[in-house]
Amino acid sequence: MKRLVIFSAAVGLAACIIASMPSRAGAADEATPIFGIKIPSGYRDWRLISVAHEAGKLDDLRAILGNDVAIEAYRAGKQEFPDGAIIARLAWSYTPSEENNKVFGQPQSFVAGSPKEGVQFMVKDSVKYASTGGWGFAQFNDGTPANETVLKTCFPCHAPAKAHDFVFTRYAP
Amino acid sequence: MKRLVIFSAAVGLAACIIASMPSRAGAADEATPIFGIKIPSGYRDWRLISVAHEAGKLDDLRAILGNDVAIEAYRAGKQEFPDGAIIARLAWSYTPSEENNKVFGQPQSFVAGSPKEGVQFMVKDSVKYASTGGWGFAQFNDGTPANETVLKTCFPCHAPAKAHDFVFTRYAP
Repeated sequence: MKRLVIFSAAVGLAACIIASMPSRAGAADEATPIFGIKIPSGYRDWRLISVAHEAGKLDDLRAILGNDVAIEAYRAGKQEFPDGAIIARLAWSYTPSEENNKVFGQPQSFVAGSPKEGVQFMVKDSVKYASTGGWGFAQFNDGTPANETVLKTCFPCHAPAKAHDFVFTRYAP
Repeated sequence: MKRLVIFSAAVGLAACIIASMPSRAGAADEATPIFGIKIPSGYRDWRLISVAHEAGKLDDLRAILGNDVAIEAYRAGKQEFPDGAIIARLAWSYTPSEENNKVFGQPQSFVAGSPKEGVQFMVKDSVKYASTGGWGFAQFNDGTPANETVLKTCFPCHAPAKAHDFVFTRYAP
């Protein structure tokens, strides 16, 4: 199958340091520093790109979702994402499921627990974000944009994925 | 947040024994025995309910998707799914990502590898499937419906989730 060979956006996005700002809700209209990105409306309804498990300190299960532009680019096997593509990373605590394990008869099931702070986005705009590979980076903790220090860590982390338009995640068919 | 407290459909769906029929593609118009279910068109575009990791013999990362009826029922916190709800379970091999681990500086990243056989569906029809809790169960291996023996294992496995309309998966916000 012809498809983008792109590595997990999970990585770079996750590697952005979690902002230490106190969380507060109801700030969904605030834009991030540097990139000026607001939370894209309706992102939880976007289609699935892939899933991942990050162990270690992150200790999460995650889903990578894409808006229509991103999904179509993946499915068309494009080497670069067109302007307008947005990729979202949601994560939840990596939680053993006692209920599931009873059914399986052994401890083997891990499900999405409480949502992790730090919903992250990559927004493609080759002109506006020319100095960071054509991508703007965003992170929101309970609706509050991450600070400048945090956001400056995103692009350097994604640099190793340059051959894949700075995106790590492969599309999961 | 008010939402359905429902445990991972991953469990029961996964616990259905994988059919041992030889795989073949291009049989998407075939219906399953017993329940008479065909592969729902466009299911890969459905919205995400949750994600999970099943270790042990299953050794997969999985995504649970829902059609509009299912998603709206979850979000409305309904105790029972209305007729027309369909829940899909997709799974991929649980694959360590060397690329991601290099970025993280340690082995911690697991991504969705090749698709696992056995895409599974639960279809709600309280009349048609009255004898199995109102749910029809389906599994397809490369488009080929699982056989009767396999499908008979699905409902007994879901029985422990009776209090949650026989569905294991919680909605991941």
